[in-house]
Amino acid sequence: MIITLTTDFGLSDPYVAAMKGVILSIAPDAAIVDVSHDIPPQDVDRAAFVIKGAYPFFPKGAIHVVVVDPGVGTERLILVVKTRDSIFLAPNNGALKYVFDVHPEAKVFCAARPEYFRETVSRTFHGRDIFAPLAGHLAKGVPPERLGRPFEEYERGTVTAAARLEDRIVGEVIAFDRYGNAITNIPAEWLADADRVRVLVKGLVLESLSRSYLDVPAGELLAILGGADALELSVNHGSARDKLELSLGETVIAVLG
Amino acid sequence: MIITLTTDFGLSDPYVAAMKGVILSIAPDAAIVDVSHDIPPQDVDRAAFVIKGAYPFFPKGAIHVVVVDPGVGTERLILVVKTRDSIFLAPNNGALKYVFDVHPEAKVFCAARPEYFRETVSRTFHGRDIFAPLAGHLAKGVPPERLGRPFEEYERGTVTAAARLEDRIVGEVIAFDRYGNAITNIPAEWLADADRVRVLVKGLVLESLSRSYLDVPAGELLAILGGADALELSVNHGSARDKLELSLGETVIAVLG
Amino acid sequence: MIITLTTDFGLSDPYVAAMKGVILSIAPDAAIVDVSHDIPPQDVDRAAFVIKGAYPFFPKGAIHVVVVDPGVGTERLILVVKTRDSIFLAPNNGALKYVFDVHPEAKVFCAARPEYFRETVSRTFHGRDIFAPLAGHLAKGVPPERLGRPFEEYERGTVTAAARLEDRIVGEVIAFDRYGNAITNIPAEWLADADRVRVLVKGLVLESLSRSYLDVPAGELLAILGGADALELSVNHGSARDKLELSLGETVIAVLG
Repeated sequence: MIITLTTDFGLSDPYVAAMKGVILSIAPDAAIVDVSHDIPPQDVDRAAFVIKGAYPFFPKGAIHVVVVDPGVGTERLILVVKTRDSIFLAPNNGALKYVFDVHPEAKVFCAARPEYFRETVSRTFHGRDIFAPLAGHLAKGVPPERLGRPFEEYERGTVTAAARLEDRIVGEVIAFDRYGNAITNIPAEWLADADRVRVLVKGLVLESLSRSYLDVPAGELLAILGGADALELSVNHGSARDKLELSLGETVIAVLG
Repeated sequence: MIITLTTDFGLSDPYVAAMKGVILSIAPDAAIVDVSHDIPPQDVDRAAFVIKGAYPFFPKGAIHVVVVDPGVGTERLILVVKTRDSIFLAPNNGALKYVFDVHPEAKVFCAARPEYFRETVSRTFHGRDIFAPLAGHLAKGVPPERLGRPFEEYERGTVTAAARLEDRIVGEVIAFDRYGNAITNIPAEWLADADRVRVLVKGLVLESLSRSYLDVPAGELLAILGGADALELSVNHGSARDKLELSLGETVIAVLG
Repeated sequence: MIITLTTDFGLSDPYVAAMKGVILSIAPDAAIVDVSHDIPPQDVDRAAFVIKGAYPFFPKGAIHVVVVDPGVGTERLILVVKTRDSIFLAPNNGALKYVFDVHPEAKVFCAARPEYFRETVSRTFHGRDIFAPLAGHLAKGVPPERLGRPFEEYERGTVTAAARLEDRIVGEVIAFDRYGNAITNIPAEWLADADRVRVLVKGLVLESLSRSYLDVPAGELLAILGGADALELSVNHGSARDKLELSLGETVIAVLG
């Protein structure tokens, strides 16, 4: 069974390995896949974006564990979420907002059975002491509903959708990647069939979508339908983030036709 | 069989992958788990701390390989250490000091059978040419004692224990983590049952232990019993290291009652 | 079956995990090993060097996937390369130059069978949409020749060999590693049997090769036959790159006898 891990633990400390040790102690055959441990500390929104970009590509039944958990040690709850194809574990803090957004069928439980935790639970490291053992037991076939109780009042988080007004789509930058590409919330499918698309950002106008980064000279800005199935702003051999001094939430407008 | 890796090789070079290739060539079914490859170059003490935080959580029989090895190519010896539950491979330089500290039952050998090394051994990359094949053979069931000879005069390293004088415990900061938490050598169990604990560091007094990071306002200092089963200094949504300008070895005092 | 991954995707984004999800969806038993995801963006030469340092150590049959692909979305081709012992997938951009250099037996195909791609192929993420499914199908036993058509005019790339003129070998720095070691293209075997080797770099003369980093005082420069089977310049407990302000391509001369 596949278990993926998304955390803000970094890879310099023993934290991720301790989680893996606990998982493998319970489920020796689990195939553990790192999504990212480079989520900036406590950045729940970034965690939500990163798991969104990874989980749809995993096989049915995969267990996705997200531990970005500023509230560790408080009374905040831990969610066990079952969608049609996957299981998710995450604190009740919005880290699964994109999952809830596209999976109305999701069944949500909150972890409430300490017999599935480690015997001793620390105040600061529930990744190792609660999330990892829960993941291990799920991988061994314990059904989500046995780990806790149904829970309706979970934190759904806020997904900012792009708005469409006739030939005008108003969206925003929701993430940057390593290359400095700026990923927007404007769905690729809204643009894919348009005869013409112009893109407006920070007072600039791009007259059409590009089909590859090399469509423009090195250092030049372009707009493209990216791998996240969304409109992205990029710079050939450079960073759109740096070139335009973009921030998260920056408005991006696409004009069709 | 599980093999964990802790090195200062980083992840930008082919070194870690070369080790994994060698291991898998000998033991195709080995499950290799990275503990960390971000140990600062030649920082044996940090390696000791990191493996200490990971190995106790792995299943019985796991093989833990630590390669932080400034003396590579010299006559320094390579240790094969068998404790009740685990096997360790490391240079004879103190990287296993915490293991020796808590495992008086450890049996120590030094690697001395080149037939278990790679056929050619380079001067600078014993991780690939000696440690990896030894780990592979251990994973295949070769017993530690067959890889070398018993060795008593190994480097135990120095573990600085906290000192207890009646109601006063004097310890020090032994590590920082990604968040800037300062982990001390004051054991959690010495404090867990106290009615009251005050913590002194750098002229400041914390009047009690916190139960979660959110017990104090954002940016404020707190003391908490952390996941390493030790007293830690933290800042809610911040870094204790930065806020107090802490260094390794900084004195921390806990006053009970 | 082993699949290794070498990319410039970094580990902060969901890209690597998405690739792994696709691979595991096709080949659930694949053992995926990260070589490096820290190739600087679009640095095809660095990717070539890194895969060169890793692939020879993997078992026969391993599949090595290199995705450093500035031309993604253009008409650039994707190569499937079969050597005596391994299979490689990479864009047709020189990333496999060292493989071609030492494997004249290589059979080269270009990917041309979309039924082995993901159903929808994005413009910017062929790592997930083409490379990963091809790797999955190769791992399941689909032979390379079925994924495309024979292709002769592939980009071989330029491997700069060291030149030997009687007792004088003129080479250059081809890579740096995390420690600041400078790895040259002067083969270790050209020097291994010499009675005496002097090394010239940046106006300095090293009078002999060292046998370990500790042969010189901390902070001092040395030359050594390194793990890449080549002459390397190092500084004991320091960085040769920084100490000599070296750049890639810097001339290094070895004088024998």
